[in-house]
Amino acid sequence: MKYKAEVKVTLKNGVRDPQGAAVDTVLRRTGLEDSANVQVGKYFTLTVTADNDKDAKIKLDEICHDVLSNPVLESYEIGRLETV
Amino acid sequence: MKYKAEVKVTLKNGVRDPQGAAVDTVLRRTGLEDSANVQVGKYFTLTVTADNDKDAKIKLDEICHDVLSNPVLESYEIGRLETV
Repeated sequence: MKYKAEVKVTLKNGVRDPQGAAVDTVLRRTGLEDSANVQVGKYFTLTVTADNDKDAKIKLDEICHDVLSNPVLESYEIGRLETV
Repeated sequence: MKYKAEVKVTLKNGVRDPQGAAVDTVLRRTGLEDSANVQVGKYFTLTVTADNDKDAKIKLDEICHDVLSNPVLESYEIGRLETV
């Protein structure tokens, strides 16, 4: 079966987020929001082939850990697993 | 009130996604997945100040449209609005 999943990759707590700080500055300068505390991460959607939900999750875990994230600096969250 | 929200920014349909294609290639080469059809987007969390839910959504819409996304190439989705 084919499973479609979404993955969010975010920086771990305590890791500096210059990209987020840059957006914060823009929001402050444009008067949109004073302290938005923006954090920037990555968002992936992908499809994996697996026999069942459990295998799909194992495969996704491997893909997230090995390819989509840097486990030293980032953590990932797998959500919305649906068959397609 | 302070509202915390998450925002996903993804490429619109038909826009080339070279970053996603690169991940696809890696997954194929490493034997992890043959056709994962990876799509890469951005994931933001941020906090806005507003009087109520409706105003918070209006403000977030403005921020997403003007700062977080490029409306020509990307679309955004605001999710998980929670008071903090």
